[in-house]
Amino acid sequence: MSFELTILGSGAAIPTSRRNPTAQYVICNDRHILIDCGEGTQMQMRRFGVRFQRISHILISHLHGDHFFGLVGLLSTMHLMGRDKGITIYGPPQLEQIVRLQLEVGGAKPDFELNFISTSSKEPEIIFSDKMIEISSFPLKHRIPTTGFIIREQQKERNLNSDALKGSGLGIEHFPKLKRGMDVVLENGEIRKALDFTFDPKPSLAYAFCSDTAYMPSLPELVKDSDVLYHEATFTEKDRYRAKATFHSTAKQAAMIAREANVKKLLLGHLSARYSDVEDHLKEAREVFPFTDVVEDGLHIQIA
Amino acid sequence: MSFELTILGSGAAIPTSRRNPTAQYVICNDRHILIDCGEGTQMQMRRFGVRFQRISHILISHLHGDHFFGLVGLLSTMHLMGRDKGITIYGPPQLEQIVRLQLEVGGAKPDFELNFISTSSKEPEIIFSDKMIEISSFPLKHRIPTTGFIIREQQKERNLNSDALKGSGLGIEHFPKLKRGMDVVLENGEIRKALDFTFDPKPSLAYAFCSDTAYMPSLPELVKDSDVLYHEATFTEKDRYRAKATFHSTAKQAAMIAREANVKKLLLGHLSARYSDVEDHLKEAREVFPFTDVVEDGLHIQIA
Repeated sequence: MSFELTILGSGAAIPTSRRNPTAQYVICNDRHILIDCGEGTQMQMRRFGVRFQRISHILISHLHGDHFFGLVGLLSTMHLMGRDKGITIYGPPQLEQIVRLQLEVGGAKPDFELNFISTSSKEPEIIFSDKMIEISSFPLKHRIPTTGFIIREQQKERNLNSDALKGSGLGIEHFPKLKRGMDVVLENGEIRKALDFTFDPKPSLAYAFCSDTAYMPSLPELVKDSDVLYHEATFTEKDRYRAKATFHSTAKQAAMIAREANVKKLLLGHLSARYSDVEDHLKEAREVFPFTDVVEDGLHIQIA
Repeated sequence: MSFELTILGSGAAIPTSRRNPTAQYVICNDRHILIDCGEGTQMQMRRFGVRFQRISHILISHLHGDHFFGLVGLLSTMHLMGRDKGITIYGPPQLEQIVRLQLEVGGAKPDFELNFISTSSKEPEIIFSDKMIEISSFPLKHRIPTTGFIIREQQKERNLNSDALKGSGLGIEHFPKLKRGMDVVLENGEIRKALDFTFDPKPSLAYAFCSDTAYMPSLPELVKDSDVLYHEATFTEKDRYRAKATFHSTAKQAAMIAREANVKKLLLGHLSARYSDVEDHLKEAREVFPFTDVVEDGLHIQIA
């Protein structure tokens, strides 16, 4: 089992030669998830060795072009490469019409099932859950309806204590119950408490993605205790009025969210093309929250 | 005055690390024209030093994604970079709805005038004409409605023969008429024939662009005597059945069109990702039409 993140695009609205528009690839416990899909994402996936066809979930935060103009091209390529496994896309309600219209006029109806699930920009929701992961969305504060996402490992099973199990009368048939923390009653009526024969499971980790948003004081509550928080930092404090006017954040504001939310690590991205380096972003964020990095295209991060 | 072509994308439906999807940039007598706009075209323009804001005409051959998925991203970036000069887009009728829908949901109504002119997939038409250039479209034979385009210099003015003009009684006030080939009547009633005082103008050149098409025996008539002909060559003869089935051409078929149309130079592009080099394309085409090259991303060609 692993939990890892690859940055496919770390730039803002205007792509530069160094930063493609937003896209991230997450593998969480064998679930392959694409978050946002700016223009050129399929080329970035090829460049960074991401295998398209493994992706089963695509999360689109909002309908500004730098977050979704690469989606229909990626789906077309998946189709041309012979995909037959279905895919589910989570995003604002109009996304389905936009994608289907373009596939239809091009006569490129995919051979795989294409499901759309609308996200809500009003309240947090769990949008996907299986035995390994849970994905939820929550509203952000931007010029058009926008959500962030949290990808979370499901609670893990307890680990067996093999020393304690010796001579306990417990056998392999009891292990599934013990791993789930349930006590076992033996045939002779004796009770074996799960806590005596197991260790606590490894913690379940969470990655929170906050795409375009103005500074949002209620946000820490929504992403509380995430292990890694990605938060946009289109601007620095020097341009804070521009940030406010365009419903974006500064690096310092992102750091304030991270500190308040008690996360372990903060990643900054979506840097405006006006900044030629990341020094000012890093400096002002680390003064508030030291465990901060600025991402770049191709960066690979091991969350677990 | 110049007439030049830059290849921004030379690949087919599936982009590869070497070939982006179709896009070409033409400068003809100070008119700046983009032909097709596959995903990532704006990044290619940046890479090859093309200045976005100079473009005034965009020609879209058809609505397969590899020919237009980069259009709305390019328009968004033009808007974000403060464009105020209008732009005209020529393409299939549904293109307008696709572009406007996406700009609208993103709340990114551009500050510049965006004009759409529908091309006809039934018959050739002149779609633009001013004193310097003429652009026409003509039907191709593909799975969905598709057109090619010809960009042609307008007939140039005759050149003055300064030796002959000496002592002829002709002055600067007569030059505009002479340059247009019109005879002049002097005040004393004498006639001065334009042919005696001017040289023939330089020839007016033409560039013909044939995007996706099956082999089309009627095509040479439509692109006759072009100086440079671009013709797709998705396949080689080895895969001619696949070419036929998908309404594409082989390199040999493109060369047959070029020979029959009596063009000066043939450029091949839109190569399928299955070919790792261009040798077979070149070999089979040059056997039929020797003045053939295969284009690649970034190639710059001086037409005049």
